[in-house]
Order: sequence, then structure tokens, then C-alpha cells
Amino acid sequence: MKTRAAVAFEAKKPLEIVEVDLEGPKAGEVLVEIKATGICHTDAYTLDGLDSEGIFPSILGHEGAGIIREIGVGVTSVKAGDHVIPLYTPECRQCKSCLSQKTNLCTAIRATQGKGVMPDGTSRFSYKGKPIYHYMGCSTFSNFTVLPEIAVAKIREDAPFDKSCYIGCGVTTGVGAVVNTAKVEPGSNVVVFGLGGIGLNVIQGAKMAGADKIIGVDVNDSKEEWGRRFGMTHFVNPKKITGDIVPHLVTLTDGGADYTFDCTGNTTVMRQALEACHRGWGTSIIIGVAEAGKEIATRPFQLVTGRNWRGTAFGGARGRTDVPKIVDWYMNGKIQIDPMITHTLKLEDINKGFDLMHEGKSIRSVVVF
Amino acid sequence: MKTRAAVAFEAKKPLEIVEVDLEGPKAGEVLVEIKATGICHTDAYTLDGLDSEGIFPSILGHEGAGIIREIGVGVTSVKAGDHVIPLYTPECRQCKSCLSQKTNLCTAIRATQGKGVMPDGTSRFSYKGKPIYHYMGCSTFSNFTVLPEIAVAKIREDAPFDKSCYIGCGVTTGVGAVVNTAKVEPGSNVVVFGLGGIGLNVIQGAKMAGADKIIGVDVNDSKEEWGRRFGMTHFVNPKKITGDIVPHLVTLTDGGADYTFDCTGNTTVMRQALEACHRGWGTSIIIGVAEAGKEIATRPFQLVTGRNWRGTAFGGARGRTDVPKIVDWYMNGKIQIDPMITHTLKLEDINKGFDLMHEGKSIRSVVVF
Repeated sequence: MKTRAAVAFEAKKPLEIVEVDLEGPKAGEVLVEIKATGICHTDAYTLDGLDSEGIFPSILGHEGAGIIREIGVGVTSVKAGDHVIPLYTPECRQCKSCLSQKTNLCTAIRATQGKGVMPDGTSRFSYKGKPIYHYMGCSTFSNFTVLPEIAVAKIREDAPFDKSCYIGCGVTTGVGAVVNTAKVEPGSNVVVFGLGGIGLNVIQGAKMAGADKIIGVDVNDSKEEWGRRFGMTHFVNPKKITGDIVPHLVTLTDGGADYTFDCTGNTTVMRQALEACHRGWGTSIIIGVAEAGKEIATRPFQLVTGRNWRGTAFGGARGRTDVPKIVDWYMNGKIQIDPMITHTLKLEDINKGFDLMHEGKSIRSVVVF
Repeated sequence: MKTRAAVAFEAKKPLEIVEVDLEGPKAGEVLVEIKATGICHTDAYTLDGLDSEGIFPSILGHEGAGIIREIGVGVTSVKAGDHVIPLYTPECRQCKSCLSQKTNLCTAIRATQGKGVMPDGTSRFSYKGKPIYHYMGCSTFSNFTVLPEIAVAKIREDAPFDKSCYIGCGVTTGVGAVVNTAKVEPGSNVVVFGLGGIGLNVIQGAKMAGADKIIGVDVNDSKEEWGRRFGMTHFVNPKKITGDIVPHLVTLTDGGADYTFDCTGNTTVMRQALEACHRGWGTSIIIGVAEAGKEIATRPFQLVTGRNWRGTAFGGARGRTDVPKIVDWYMNGKIQIDPMITHTLKLEDINKGFDLMHEGKSIRSVVVF
């Protein structure tokens, strides 16, 4: 079949909207009509050529929602007509990681996904007879895409695609980091570094979990209003305080935070986030993706005196199990998404969405098909 | 009163055995007759002038066992005649840390302890009219010493002092790191870096906790026999393998260790210990004390993909609550101490104990009074 898609033919060039060829689903795969997709910093990171493992030409996009239109041989867990969110972190429920019940990092199809192909080693997309690669196992910048059965989360049918697509990455990453990874308890003091989309989702996750102080840290004062909208109780602009940010936060939290979250990708901030934790039990969670080659550092004394340094990917969420729950939380009003979707675009305008993000003018831009 | 003690008059000089003056216990304090004390690397670290916060003249030693001979006003939890282990990490059961139930790092007397004095701001020791400072709140290199009531663990009377003193630091630090901090479960794969006294105690803790593979790593082949004696199942000498130690250990543990422990104090090894952990859930615990100014580093990707970096002090043990249990474990044969006490010395020979340690000839030297 043919499908309209935004193709990244090479790094550092705008996406091109073309009709590509798409093979139908093979055994264990499903064909999904993407109804909406968010544009995430990770897409831009790859398009900008910063990801040394980026593959071109490819169809980017990993934050979508849509409807299953066809299933391949042997598919049993979903059927045509089901509403789904594609999962860049699949959940096979059979591998060592899934069976450990200690991590969401399913390894079933990791090797092929990293190479831009389906589990059988080939791509379903092509253009003028040459293969176009998949991206993060999703390629949601295409009106139709093919996914492994284990890489779709079935969701309720009353959830609007143009909002629930954000659960495919940003919402789950932020809310999940609080709920699944940190397991923030009621009464906790929380500090969130970086109030972009992920940071705001951490804030609303912390609010939902019953945190007391929810302190947002950002160098941009305009973020304060955004933070407060989702439950932030205190705002700190590190450029506008006297002295270092770490002792400032330690004082503000009466000895240090119970949980801190880095949503900046800046390794200097990651260190501050750790050191702002309470002696004895404070836990710092790294969410942000750092530049290639950058390292985090601290004195081991910080850990020996009881701080914990951890990280999270996809919010520690098991996609097929947890994503439908987060959709419920959204539909039941426990978390908000609508105010975060600052721009809704047509596929033709997808490059504008990247521009808005680079210019810091959007929380989330969503493309609707 | 007078007591015989080994005094560190200044850094980098041998201890001098002299009669010092000791004031009796004030309110909330107890007088303890030390019957035996271990010589720990931390004592040597201070004596060698490596601890920038070291205070002289002082009476070192923090790994003792003895008998309470007198109690001060208001002391209710112990009485004269009780057998006790002094605690450099006290347990007041009243401060924010104790009440959190999340850490053993009681803060009740931290400030004064760090200054070498009792909680009232003065020292009980003097020599020729000038104060001699306390060390780590213990000063067990003295036949008699004064301690706060909250800094003694009452233990059973049938435990031999010349063995149970080792529970005052090394045993609890190693076994406790496994039991209290890591909470190693049966079936876990464990890697222990550095097979000195702490490493051997981590090994026997891991064995007691039911670990499957217990891999010891040391550059000294002579440690293999020691490790196997306490439950080590595999030995790796990093100098004798082909390639890097991290992939070697990842292969040996089928993807990485569930728990790793650094018992070296070397920050390069601390990084290896983290990176040898299993993706998704592996936890690395720093026990070793690093040189002043040294930092640990890694790529944040290591944490984002699910490894946890933690540390432990005094094995995460609440002194008054957990130390008596460890004495029971020793007396019941669940852990061994006797083979680790390689040398037993008189106080006059205490400097020889430091020499043996520096020369790597002892696991633990114990001074008996």
C-alpha cells in the first residue's frame, strides 16, 4: 500500500512529505493508522545529527496514537479496530527483563529496533524501490505504519488521539518516573530541574502522588506559570538566587529533597540534582538524555552518606500494562494533557513543529492526520 | 581516673602508650572498660594525615568491645556490668534521621563528634593538663573511655571481646551492606571488588543471604583462598584476564550482576562496579572510602538504563538495634569472625598492628587489654 509520510532523507535537512510504499504486517505484526503524533526532542536530536546511531533515510516519530487496521498471522492480543499507542519500549512478557519484574526495559526486539528494521531484519517502508528505515520501532510520522504486536498498547476508544498520543512518550516518561521509578509517597518533598514538557509531567505526577513541596527549577522565569498550573508549589530560578543552587534547595527542603528529577539532559544539573537530595535517603532520578560523551560525576561521599543515583527510561512503564492506566488517569482527570498541547499541526507543517520546539515556543506540538 | 591509652600526639608519628586522665561520665554518658579493639584502615587513614578533618592529639580506635563500669545521671538503657560495643554511628531514636526509618545515619551528636569532643563540647581525656581529643566518638585505643549512652550497643555476655569487637566496624560494614543496604535476595549474583576485611565480610553476608554466584575481584591472587573460605564461588584477577574487567564480569554473570560492592576506595573501580551491574535493575554499593578530592563518574546512560548507584556507611546498621543481632549471628555460627582475626596484640604492640596492615599481612589485628 501507499502512505503519506514525513521522511528524514538525511540529517540536518527538513523532513519531506512524500508517498512511500508500505508492506503489510508479517507474522506477529500489526498495521496501524496513525491518527496523531507528537513531535519530541528525541526526534529533533536524531534529525539534527546528534545521535551517532541515527539511521537515514528514515521515518521519525515515536509518540503516536491510532487504530489497528490489519493484523498479521498469529496476532492474538489485538484486532483490527482497536485503538492503540505504539511503544518504543515494547513489552514481550517473555524475556529475562520482562520476567524479572524489576524493569520495563524489554530486550525482545532491541537489536533490530536499534538498526531501524523490524524483528525479521527488514524494513516495511520503501521509496522508489529503496528501503526507508523505521525509527525507535514506531515511525509515527507516517499515516500508516507497521509495528510488532508486542509494541502496541491497547487503549480505550473514547480517548482523543490528538491528546493521548502524548502518552506515547512525554507524559508516561514524566509521570512514570514519579510513580514507577521513584515511587514518590504522599508527604515527600520533590525538586524538578527543567520545566519543559517532561518536567511538567513530573510535577503533575508528584502532585498526583501526594507530594508536599514540589519545587521547580528553571533558568527561564516564564516557566513558573507553567509549573504552577500543574502543581508546582515553589519556583527557583538559579540565576536569580544568591549563592549556589544546591544549598539553596537544601535549605528550602529542610535538609534536602526526598526525590529530585533531572529533566534537562545537562550533566552539571544532574550533579546538582543528586547533591540536593537529603542525606540518608534522598533519591535522584535522571530522565534527561545527555549529549554524547558527557559524563556525570560526584564525590563518592554523596552516595556513602545515603543518597541514591538512579535513572529512568519511558518512566519505568511497562507499555502494554501501564500505558492504558495512564490513559485512564487522563480520561478521569487525574492528570492533564490538553493545556500542554500548545500547537496542533497538519503533516505538511511538521517542520514548523520542529522550529517551534527549537525556539522554545511550544510545550508539545502534535501533528494530526 | 587514670587509664592507659595509645595516644596519637600528631599525624604520621607512631602512637605513644601513656597514662592519660579520664573524667567520669557526665549526664547521659557511660564509662566503658575496653577489653579489645580492632585496628581499622580508617584509624591508619587519620594517623597517616590523609583525613583533612583529623584532630590531634587524640586517642584513635573505633572498633571495640567492653564492659560498662559506671553510668552518668539519667542513663536508663544500660547499667554497670553490661557488655557493649561502642558505636561511631549512634542511634538516638529521636532525630529526623532515626525517625525516618530510612537511614542509620543518626545526626544527634554528629557536630560534636566531628570536632573530637563529647556532646557537651568538651573532652573527657587529658594529658598533663591539656585535652586529648576523642576520635569517631569512640577512642577505643584506651583501656577506659567515655561514650554517650546512645553510642553503645548492649550485647550478650557470652560473646568473646577479642572477636566481637570486629563487629564494631568491619563485620557490620560488610555484612550490613548486603543485608541492610542492598537487601540481597536468595539467587542473586554478586560481585565484590577488593578482598580485604570488608570484602570478605560482604562475601559472607552474600552467602548468608543465599546469593548464587559470589564473584570476588582482586589484583592479589593470594586473596582467592581467603575469599573461598567465606563463600566466594568465583575469583577474578583483573590483571590476568584478556580485555576489560567489565565485559568479563557481565559475561560471567549472564548480563551483569544483580549487586556489586566496591570495597577498594578506588574511584576507577567504583565505576567498574557500577557498569558491571545488570541493565534494568543492577545495584552498585560503594563501601570504600575514597581519597580526598577524588570523584566518581560514568555516562548517565548507565543509570537511565536501570542501574542504581548507592553507598553505605556502617553497613546501614542502626547500632543499638542491629549490632546485637550481628553478635547473635556470629555466636550462632551464621557468620564467621575467628579466621579473620589474624593477629592478637598487646597495647604496647599497637604500632606493629598498623605496620602489619600497611604491609598487607593482616586481615584484622586486634589489641586486647
